[in-house]
Amino acid sequence: MNDSLNNLFYPKSIAVIGASAKEGTLSWELLNNLIKFGYKGKLFPVNPNAESIHSIKSYRRVSEIEDSIDLAIMMVSRKLVLDAIDDCHRKKISSVVVITAGFKESGAEGAILEEELVKRIKKYGIRLVGPNCMGIINTHNKIRLNATFVQGEPISGGIGFVSQSGALGAAVLKTLQQNDIGLSQFISIGNKADISGNAVIEYWKDDPDIKVITVYLESFGKPRRFMELSREITKIKPIIAIKSARTAQGIRAASSHTGALASSDTVTNALFEQSGVIRVSTIDEMFDIAKAFDKANLPKGSRLGILTNAGGPAILAIDESTAAGLTVPQLSKATQKKLRVAAPLEAPVFNPVDLLPSASAELYSSATRIMLKDSNIDSLIVILGPPLSLSTLEIAKSVSNACKDSRKTCMLVLMSQDEVISRLRNEAPFHPPVYRFPENAVRAIGKLLEYKNWQESETGEIIHFNTDKNSVRKILNKYKRSGEVYLKFEDVSKILNAYGMPVIESINSKNINELSRIAEKLKYPVVIKAMGRNLIHKSDVGGVETDIHTEADLIKAARNILENLGRHKKLKQFEYFLIQPYIRCGVETIIGITKDENAGHLIMFGLGGIFVEVLNDVKFKLLPIRNSEAKSMVRSIKSYKLLTGIRARKAVDINYIEENLLRLSQLIEDFPEFTEVDLNPFIFTDKKEECKILDARMKVVLNNRYAD
Amino acid sequence: MNDSLNNLFYPKSIAVIGASAKEGTLSWELLNNLIKFGYKGKLFPVNPNAESIHSIKSYRRVSEIEDSIDLAIMMVSRKLVLDAIDDCHRKKISSVVVITAGFKESGAEGAILEEELVKRIKKYGIRLVGPNCMGIINTHNKIRLNATFVQGEPISGGIGFVSQSGALGAAVLKTLQQNDIGLSQFISIGNKADISGNAVIEYWKDDPDIKVITVYLESFGKPRRFMELSREITKIKPIIAIKSARTAQGIRAASSHTGALASSDTVTNALFEQSGVIRVSTIDEMFDIAKAFDKANLPKGSRLGILTNAGGPAILAIDESTAAGLTVPQLSKATQKKLRVAAPLEAPVFNPVDLLPSASAELYSSATRIMLKDSNIDSLIVILGPPLSLSTLEIAKSVSNACKDSRKTCMLVLMSQDEVISRLRNEAPFHPPVYRFPENAVRAIGKLLEYKNWQESETGEIIHFNTDKNSVRKILNKYKRSGEVYLKFEDVSKILNAYGMPVIESINSKNINELSRIAEKLKYPVVIKAMGRNLIHKSDVGGVETDIHTEADLIKAARNILENLGRHKKLKQFEYFLIQPYIRCGVETIIGITKDENAGHLIMFGLGGIFVEVLNDVKFKLLPIRNSEAKSMVRSIKSYKLLTGIRARKAVDINYIEENLLRLSQLIEDFPEFTEVDLNPFIFTDKKEECKILDARMKVVLNNRYAD
Repeated sequence: MNDSLNNLFYPKSIAVIGASAKEGTLSWELLNNLIKFGYKGKLFPVNPNAESIHSIKSYRRVSEIEDSIDLAIMMVSRKLVLDAIDDCHRKKISSVVVITAGFKESGAEGAILEEELVKRIKKYGIRLVGPNCMGIINTHNKIRLNATFVQGEPISGGIGFVSQSGALGAAVLKTLQQNDIGLSQFISIGNKADISGNAVIEYWKDDPDIKVITVYLESFGKPRRFMELSREITKIKPIIAIKSARTAQGIRAASSHTGALASSDTVTNALFEQSGVIRVSTIDEMFDIAKAFDKANLPKGSRLGILTNAGGPAILAIDESTAAGLTVPQLSKATQKKLRVAAPLEAPVFNPVDLLPSASAELYSSATRIMLKDSNIDSLIVILGPPLSLSTLEIAKSVSNACKDSRKTCMLVLMSQDEVISRLRNEAPFHPPVYRFPENAVRAIGKLLEYKNWQESETGEIIHFNTDKNSVRKILNKYKRSGEVYLKFEDVSKILNAYGMPVIESINSKNINELSRIAEKLKYPVVIKAMGRNLIHKSDVGGVETDIHTEADLIKAARNILENLGRHKKLKQFEYFLIQPYIRCGVETIIGITKDENAGHLIMFGLGGIFVEVLNDVKFKLLPIRNSEAKSMVRSIKSYKLLTGIRARKAVDINYIEENLLRLSQLIEDFPEFTEVDLNPFIFTDKKEECKILDARMKVVLNNRYAD
Repeated sequence: MNDSLNNLFYPKSIAVIGASAKEGTLSWELLNNLIKFGYKGKLFPVNPNAESIHSIKSYRRVSEIEDSIDLAIMMVSRKLVLDAIDDCHRKKISSVVVITAGFKESGAEGAILEEELVKRIKKYGIRLVGPNCMGIINTHNKIRLNATFVQGEPISGGIGFVSQSGALGAAVLKTLQQNDIGLSQFISIGNKADISGNAVIEYWKDDPDIKVITVYLESFGKPRRFMELSREITKIKPIIAIKSARTAQGIRAASSHTGALASSDTVTNALFEQSGVIRVSTIDEMFDIAKAFDKANLPKGSRLGILTNAGGPAILAIDESTAAGLTVPQLSKATQKKLRVAAPLEAPVFNPVDLLPSASAELYSSATRIMLKDSNIDSLIVILGPPLSLSTLEIAKSVSNACKDSRKTCMLVLMSQDEVISRLRNEAPFHPPVYRFPENAVRAIGKLLEYKNWQESETGEIIHFNTDKNSVRKILNKYKRSGEVYLKFEDVSKILNAYGMPVIESINSKNINELSRIAEKLKYPVVIKAMGRNLIHKSDVGGVETDIHTEADLIKAARNILENLGRHKKLKQFEYFLIQPYIRCGVETIIGITKDENAGHLIMFGLGGIFVEVLNDVKFKLLPIRNSEAKSMVRSIKSYKLLTGIRARKAVDINYIEENLLRLSQLIEDFPEFTEVDLNPFIFTDKKEECKILDARMKVVLNNRYAD
């Protein structure tokens, strides 16, 4: 554990600088919350104009307090913050939360003030939360810290929540209280002038109180660090994050195919997916899932049991199960027999098991126990549909008891009988997670299963191929000081060959005269292409002719191409002809590289031609990729079936696709000065030796090292 | 309006048969709810063992009541129901709600009882709700009817809700109360022995109190009637329905391509889409949208304005807007100027407009008014993020006032400050719909917009082509009494030609000897296919050879085919060879018909070959289709771009695709005995005369008329 945050979450003494004696102000509320929640340390209000606040002696300055102070919480007006920081330094306080707003978020003046603030805390060695934040909570019994001004009392549980937005944080705290969802620790990080989301999740990694981490971030300061960290953490405990599409504005409006296929969501998607972070799109969804991780076991598999007293809600559960990746199998004969004995004659006992509205607490309890023992199911949803003949609370309690010792995943669906929830918490604190409607419970189980599969998935490794790094360096040296530049095709070919990627053999020809001289030596059929470093979508301007069988046709094709280029006003960009063997069979793919300013290089894979054009069926990952990631990339495109062979087609060499993705990944790791790569088309067949890159473009930015 | 349900929703007098004097029983709760909610008519408890119940004189039998009775609500035990019905008849009661369970839903014995019940009410001319239901609500001030046993008081509003499931209905009523969502009328229809969901929505069609209809149905008794009705209704008011995938189990496990591509969701999807029903997947979503329809205006367009006092929630709103089909444009210069004057210096005023946490009620109110006047936006979300310097209630009230007279769509997001909701209802009953989080508000606006587009969309019409109906009848007569049968290809060709669909010209040949005789007359290149009524996926067993240029190659191809069929043990199914011109260009499509036992015929369109095989990219609609539906069908497949021409390809004749869909629709309407049709492949190019059906299969079931 990164101990530097201990003073934030476990302070033995707190100074509240700017505490107000005026009821209803935010700083009064904060002190009030600290006291009401039963903070187990010492509180020192600091306010030059008050003798005492909340019956506690108040100090004029922090430095006047005799005791040592672990944490200062600052709510003074903006212009007093720097002075107060100096005073904290005098008092040797090492951790400060600045709640005061009006810094970077409010414009130029505030930004200057924030810079000065950061300068001072760095000088003093103070760790800072905020500014412009809304505080910290730790519900652990040994500390009972509620340093926020949000009304209501946090409920204790296993969720850690870090929020970049204060308003959203406050709203979430209210929602958690209203829905009986238990929090372990909460921190609002505001402007992240010092302590970032990454620092917090790293701190939570080893804290056994935190069973699940929830994250609301609007921006990633260091996306690479986030990925690295969360990759480690998600193997131990889940991270759930709300989507924020704001991170990918950095992908340059690229002229490359690959760049054009990246969307504003590409980076966040890749980041979360590669690090096993569970992405949600709403706050409600985030905590529906978080409470499941907090209170339920992970399912061993996808088989769902449903116990109910009414048909309708069970149907909703079944309907949702497919989308959630779950199945609703028949129960074993033995289970059915046992249920048959326990339940009324007309009760269906296959799955869903419907105990009918007359079901008693005893019947619910024994049916729960019987179903949980059935090896045909991995998880169980118990639905308590109104009206119940007995009190819903009694039934909920007896079901909770019946679930208590099972290692399977259990969920309780109370069908909007919300009045039961808070009493259930007090009378059966070990109860399964509670949902209003069955759909939400089913979705949550689906997410638990996804996470369990992620935890058990192969981590994989970065593969290192033997490559000829030196040749590439030599080629790139030729372009030194050219800034941003497309490489010549012959250099592209050499580079790809140096890293073991199979570019098709080809012959250059400057003009038609030269072409006539080489035409008779060619092995037909061939393709002829107009080449030029700035000639990008050459097939769009009639710059490519394929399936040429004779010398006469070749010359005619070359003439056509020049005419086409002329008509499209692209003749200036033409440099030479390229002649290559014409390949008929195989599947066209596209493999490429693009770069996000913030998150770095991404690699892309997809099927070429109409699949890319029409369906945008591509997959991106952040570099470098591991062998397991290359594997999942290829398998995750929608048209994957085309690679495995359908009807009469043979499967292509999928291992070899993966190998090429890994080789390209290695090239970019070795030479991050590449900003765009398009291997398009890259043809794959079932025979490795037939697989060829037919065309390729590469762009480098030289003298501009890769920034993490 | 269908007046036959008036006695249910507007009864002047009610007999509660089986009312109990024992507090806590369901029948006691029901009578209690009727009284507490302030029912404006006369109540008559019926119970042989009580003198009075709830201080109201009780009767031993219905027939002993002196006054006339509009509605009887029955909660007697199952074995007394028939007697009580007889007594209702004696009393000339024309409407009865049977809440009692234990009928069809409980097994064979109950089913027999239900049959008897239905027989009697039909004889007596009684309209029946239930059995096995949970009652009726009408919140209208002139009636104040709460004939359910669900605790809590319904809130008055514009939503009609019909539920097939009682338990779900009860849960929804609780949710509506908890979330301040206003109900107009509610009915639980239980086993639908008489009154169906269709009857209820038809009744609500013309009721001005009902602004939006919400529906939970597990099964469609008459899907065609539902479609017809809801098509009419949704042009007047919205219908929101929860998905229920249970309706499509009727699609027979077909050997046809088209049948195999239909999923369990195909029928419901087509049904809802063609009738403009808004489909949701959760109860929460249903009422998030319903309350928007109840309380907000429809947006004129997709442009969303966001007013907030905190950045985080505004970002969530923006993130969600794309998925909801909305845009967040800049405000006009004039608006920005006005906001600049009203708002603090650091407040961003472009859109989102962020008033900062210090915002007052006056500032919120004037910013709301200014933004609503901007012609750059069609809808406005006002977010009140905690903490607010003033009371949230005051701000919510002044925003509500500012929205009151605008014709634009307004939404209020209270960021989980739920305590405000009930007070806002009392103090500003005209307030905009209230949401906990901005994502939900944005989604709801998206749905309002979708609905508005549906309302304004062309209805279109069924097109009648001149066809040769008689020839088809003659052909089908040949197959009479064959039961279920595949037609011969030559008959298929004739039928398609009779309805103006272009089958490719082709020549038959019984064997290779015959082939040699006709080979020299052919115009090459040609295709040769093995034919046979039971030879279905012929290309999978090597039964097709294409692009044949010479007589010798043709003979060789025929030999190959026979050899292939032999190897696949399909020689027995071979009947003859078919020779057709080989067509190289154009786009392969597949057009087909399948039949759902419950909902009838469906027509399918998709791109053929790998698009169908790999991506399942097809669209189904229920027959008959209108020209507008043919149009939207073609446009709704994911690979539509391929038809409009990409890169060097020309667009195909899309009008002609639509025409063929409509012609096929007409054929099936005229001859519903077709159960399967596959036109596959059906090639389209840019020239109508080149478009050809290359292969076709048709199955009929004769002597089995189409059932609605």
